[in-house]
Amino acid sequence: MKALIMAGGQGTRFWPLSRELYPKQLLKLGDSHTLLQQTVMRLSPLIKPEDIHVITSRKLMVDIKSQLGDVDGGGVNIMLEPEPKNTAPAVGLGALYLERSAPGSVMAVLPSDHLIKQKKKFHATLKKAESLAGEGYLVVFGVKPTKPETGYGYIKTGKGIGDGSFRVERFVEKPDAKTAAEYLESGEYLWNSGMFVWKSSVILDEMKAHMPALYKGLKKIEAALGTENEEAVAAGEFAKLKAVSIDYGVMEKSKNVAVVEAEFDWSDLGSWSAIEEIIEPDGEGNVTVGKVVSLSCRDTTFYAEDRLVAGIGLEGMVVVDTPDATLICKKDMAQNVKDVVAAIKHKGYDEYISHKTVQRPWGSYTVLQSGPSYKIKRIEVKPGAKLSLQVHQHRSEHWVVVSGTARATKGDTVETIHINESTYIPMSTLHRLENPGKVPLQIIEVQNGEYLEEDDIQRFDDVYGRQ
Amino acid sequence: MKALIMAGGQGTRFWPLSRELYPKQLLKLGDSHTLLQQTVMRLSPLIKPEDIHVITSRKLMVDIKSQLGDVDGGGVNIMLEPEPKNTAPAVGLGALYLERSAPGSVMAVLPSDHLIKQKKKFHATLKKAESLAGEGYLVVFGVKPTKPETGYGYIKTGKGIGDGSFRVERFVEKPDAKTAAEYLESGEYLWNSGMFVWKSSVILDEMKAHMPALYKGLKKIEAALGTENEEAVAAGEFAKLKAVSIDYGVMEKSKNVAVVEAEFDWSDLGSWSAIEEIIEPDGEGNVTVGKVVSLSCRDTTFYAEDRLVAGIGLEGMVVVDTPDATLICKKDMAQNVKDVVAAIKHKGYDEYISHKTVQRPWGSYTVLQSGPSYKIKRIEVKPGAKLSLQVHQHRSEHWVVVSGTARATKGDTVETIHINESTYIPMSTLHRLENPGKVPLQIIEVQNGEYLEEDDIQRFDDVYGRQ
Repeated sequence: MKALIMAGGQGTRFWPLSRELYPKQLLKLGDSHTLLQQTVMRLSPLIKPEDIHVITSRKLMVDIKSQLGDVDGGGVNIMLEPEPKNTAPAVGLGALYLERSAPGSVMAVLPSDHLIKQKKKFHATLKKAESLAGEGYLVVFGVKPTKPETGYGYIKTGKGIGDGSFRVERFVEKPDAKTAAEYLESGEYLWNSGMFVWKSSVILDEMKAHMPALYKGLKKIEAALGTENEEAVAAGEFAKLKAVSIDYGVMEKSKNVAVVEAEFDWSDLGSWSAIEEIIEPDGEGNVTVGKVVSLSCRDTTFYAEDRLVAGIGLEGMVVVDTPDATLICKKDMAQNVKDVVAAIKHKGYDEYISHKTVQRPWGSYTVLQSGPSYKIKRIEVKPGAKLSLQVHQHRSEHWVVVSGTARATKGDTVETIHINESTYIPMSTLHRLENPGKVPLQIIEVQNGEYLEEDDIQRFDDVYGRQ
Repeated sequence: MKALIMAGGQGTRFWPLSRELYPKQLLKLGDSHTLLQQTVMRLSPLIKPEDIHVITSRKLMVDIKSQLGDVDGGGVNIMLEPEPKNTAPAVGLGALYLERSAPGSVMAVLPSDHLIKQKKKFHATLKKAESLAGEGYLVVFGVKPTKPETGYGYIKTGKGIGDGSFRVERFVEKPDAKTAAEYLESGEYLWNSGMFVWKSSVILDEMKAHMPALYKGLKKIEAALGTENEEAVAAGEFAKLKAVSIDYGVMEKSKNVAVVEAEFDWSDLGSWSAIEEIIEPDGEGNVTVGKVVSLSCRDTTFYAEDRLVAGIGLEGMVVVDTPDATLICKKDMAQNVKDVVAAIKHKGYDEYISHKTVQRPWGSYTVLQSGPSYKIKRIEVKPGAKLSLQVHQHRSEHWVVVSGTARATKGDTVETIHINESTYIPMSTLHRLENPGKVPLQIIEVQNGEYLEEDDIQRFDDVYGRQ
């Protein structure tokens, strides 16, 4: 079996912890691994790393690669989605590649940001689905409802076709509270988990029947595969496609759909109120992460990244404090966080884009402060890692080493800078920072100049293939 | 008339904006001047700067001096309260000094952290009180209740002795809600504002009668005035005194008390919920300061100092976000902020002591980040100001100038450092930083060492008299 992990999500619902350039699948949320890493690790040993394909956008590529490198030894494949067009085009592209490399194989389509703890039961369900997919079904994982949830789509089960497996009678949209209660009561409905299993050949045939425009686009991309135009053709075809979900585009229309009841625990972590499924609340129903002082609070989640957070008399709230943004939200309005993100964007603020600490393949940097003509960064470089050989036209840089040892290339010279030593990089000087040591290197960089944005960089050599 | 401004308050109620070393009287709270500065300016021209005495603690001295210097040209006097012992000992000490320098004069005792906007009406009330004080009364300012407030003490008015003036029948403690409603209904009660007017000789006589231990201590301090033992004797006597309020110690016991009804607007700004008296709420009852995005919020105060704060569905809340601490509090529990401050102290956190940006007579500094063996500070030096000539035994310092021009003394040499230039101060090197220019100097200081606390400093010369 192959796996296609969908990792292009925007992740606005966990703002301010998630950002446009650091969506939910990249977050740890109380675990030692990120949701993406957990998704990959959860497949082992049933699906081998080389049979796993993660599809994502260009802007997330570096972070995804870095996270996968930390868990799989580099065996997992990464596919590029030219632009976000909801799930159907991404699934189509994934199926196209898989069908070409291993015709007729069964593929599981999995979100990268869900929570599943029971790995063995997950494998059992996957195997059951694999067998049905082999018979030609489009298989969806259904989850037995435990409450009248209005945030999910539902699946009405039809004729049983095996242990915990049914033909799908129909898919239904997110219901209102009354309808959700009826669905729960009837026992005939399952939640649509957004996880699917099918033969790549079968899903492509179904797209041909129900999404002819997408299929036509995929065929054009297929024709260009392996040529120098491959990327341009994919981009061009994706630009023309409508953004359509695989549920709406195929599943709701196909006559060939089965549902397998998930035997494992599952949460789609759809909003901050789901954090309780990861971190156990205390006796008062409070979840506390970080430096928190609370008085007379109940049923409240405090997620404090670095500052002290104090709460008095809070009930049913979520408080999330990050270095550049703080969210305070009524739990039952947690689904509105995406509207706040839209409002922030609309106001011209940039706290929806990235964090103050930005991950890079060589380590990370944090903007400590910016002024009209200066910027202070703390830069951490992993042992053995090096930044690109680069030039800035509008800024000079002072580097002070505060831990570890740095090697600095400046024009034709190379110098070693130890803790408590500094160096100066004048404007327009070719330079490179690297960590030749065995412990992390930390430097404080003071930038001076009239223009201090990240795009004032000309790269001449980069070990991570960036341009 | 003389004025004694009480500026020793702890100011825990406006945490995290107020801190132990930066209490409420030092805050601007939406005005261009601090509450202390407003208190001084409000007396002009009725009371001359040289007749105003501000009494405060040693730890607040530098900030108080700096703030007074910005509004009065240095004419206001500062008196030192050896240690906080509530209001009676401070009032006694103030009366002692005043009675010695201008026997029989009338003094107004005023808190430094109340809000009064109507200056002319305030002066009118002061004059009325001055006249009664001249007749030998202890005069308190009473405020006509506008709601059944349970947070104030009340004064029952007795026989009228002039326009808006009464003998005081009795002082009563903070009432419960039912009693407060009765007081409001009766029209016979006024709020105790904590502002007093009396002859210094009269209050000293009253202390002799009702607080003999305090009076005895004051007499010992008086005997040492002008001698080299003055400070030690004052400290010794204060150490022995009980902490007692002037209300409890004298006012409630004296037979000689009058109340003058305040003609002016007044708020004691007793908690964050009073912020609405300074900043007008919008149509939904929200007060918004700083970078705030709110959805479906009502009757909520957002005070955001530097980060983006987003609120969803908040009602009747106060959110205060500062660089190192965030408070989220139900408005009707705002008086419990002091309990949070106690809890923070108890937990061993230090966010109750001072802000991330610390004011100094020469400017300010902000700790941008600390690590195990380094600390990054942004230092701002006012034009013409200089830090002390100093030595650190446990740290070296890198200075990078990011705006303005610095003069650095290092051992026997003096160098001028321009924007985008840097210098290095090795451990145990005598050094001094000054701003010889006309615009503020900003430097980034990277400290390296095993011990990086503020007390690793040996001062050899300081223009502000610090040791």
